[in-house]
Amino acid sequence: DAYYNGVFCDKKSLRIPLSDRAVFFGDGIYDAAIGMHGKIFMLREHIDRFLGNAQRMNIPISQTENELKKIFGRLILSMKESCFFLYFQLTRYSDERSHAYPESDKSNLLVTVSAIPIPLRDRIFTLSLEDDIRHEFCDIKTLNLLGAVIASHNAQIKGKDEAVLHRDGTVTECAHSNVHILKNGTLITHPLDKHVLPGISRAHLLSVCSRIGISAEERAFSVDELFSADEVLITSSSKLAARVSKVENHEFTLRQESIGKTLIDTMFDDFIRSC
Amino acid sequence: DAYYNGVFCDKKSLRIPLSDRAVFFGDGIYDAAIGMHGKIFMLREHIDRFLGNAQRMNIPISQTENELKKIFGRLILSMKESCFFLYFQLTRYSDERSHAYPESDKSNLLVTVSAIPIPLRDRIFTLSLEDDIRHEFCDIKTLNLLGAVIASHNAQIKGKDEAVLHRDGTVTECAHSNVHILKNGTLITHPLDKHVLPGISRAHLLSVCSRIGISAEERAFSVDELFSADEVLITSSSKLAARVSKVENHEFTLRQESIGKTLIDTMFDDFIRSC
Repeated sequence: DAYYNGVFCDKKSLRIPLSDRAVFFGDGIYDAAIGMHGKIFMLREHIDRFLGNAQRMNIPISQTENELKKIFGRLILSMKESCFFLYFQLTRYSDERSHAYPESDKSNLLVTVSAIPIPLRDRIFTLSLEDDIRHEFCDIKTLNLLGAVIASHNAQIKGKDEAVLHRDGTVTECAHSNVHILKNGTLITHPLDKHVLPGISRAHLLSVCSRIGISAEERAFSVDELFSADEVLITSSSKLAARVSKVENHEFTLRQESIGKTLIDTMFDDFIRSC
Repeated sequence: DAYYNGVFCDKKSLRIPLSDRAVFFGDGIYDAAIGMHGKIFMLREHIDRFLGNAQRMNIPISQTENELKKIFGRLILSMKESCFFLYFQLTRYSDERSHAYPESDKSNLLVTVSAIPIPLRDRIFTLSLEDDIRHEFCDIKTLNLLGAVIASHNAQIKGKDEAVLHRDGTVTECAHSNVHILKNGTLITHPLDKHVLPGISRAHLLSVCSRIGISAEERAFSVDELFSADEVLITSSSKLAARVSKVENHEFTLRQESIGKTLIDTMFDDFIRSC
């Protein structure tokens, strides 16, 4: 259920050397997708983002796209369960620990697959509100995830499922999801910049808006707008999409029928249809 | 020359498991010191900072201070060379990859020792000027070092030794050193806050200022002030201290006798005397 630099092995027995700069610097990028019945959902988009991030971080990759797909395919085959979570990371290689890295055509590829329950379309999330103390390259899926770890931990100790982050009152995204609000029939989501991840489920949500005729605005919105929204949605590759019932102590009414519910149902229908 | 979770081994053969959250999140803290003749310079300060950072990041440590010293001592004994670099990191443990972490009393301790040349008191540094794109917890020595890695790489491709960082025109520190200016006989250095590391050599430099009667101000200074400084110094635990001859294309005059030179010489004398 795991692969590392040419070797397939058990996740529990996998070990990585100090020349993998994940260990000292978190110097790497990753991506993650879910799938069902041996099919990876939106694989094209995930591979494109992964390769794009590798290039932006100047990390060489020795595997071709077809080799990546073969590794993923072999790991997925070993999954007896119908639904799975695929994780893959590419890290920089260096012989010695030094901040500046030598030119090298070597890197480290780690891939794992885990069985997961089928994502539920009726899952409801509660959020805590946290300061966004992360770096200025949140548009790249790097392994420098401590800001997200701290926010997730804060959410957990407040009994919440996720943390929604803000920079000086402007909502950016959640610790490991994008966040969106619905107000007067319009979906509003933070524009793509260095403060948010270009989520593949975020793009999926926007494409569903366009398909079913819901207007969407990509613009910054404030914490006040979050609290006064008609609905709050989160999206991520592992959860697809979910409605939010609570941010801190503020409750949102979850109606039987709503634009948010329709958008989420359509995304889940797409997932089921494609797998 | 290495230790990991109870086992002494060769650095090259050391391997770490996926339950070490350095791998997926850079979820850990570290410290580093130099030493000579079997003595670690400012060990007390390094251990205090390490334990303080572990507590701030809520990472449990199972080793007592004495056990830490024993591990360091055993590794240093194996060093035949007279000067060494001691590196130690503590990372969070979790069975599964998830941003929020479970309560646990387990963690991972990694220690390495490497032979290094004796630090030179006459080393001169050149700096490139880079945007500080790091997170808002630079006062903690965490493994989320990609901002420093990117800046160091930029410095390297510009042919410079280190990168000096600024946030919107305010100088913070270097990628892996603190930075200080001398102007009209006064040393100026960024105050301790979330944007700079409380460097042990920075504190050493300030104590030397006080000891030999050089006035020192801990206040923010601008990129313009950096360029118009009489002298620029950098400090770090591995280099101790060095003068700067160039920032980008701007050259600083290095006089035979100067306040900066006196401060650095005094710091090196302290190092030699204590080892």
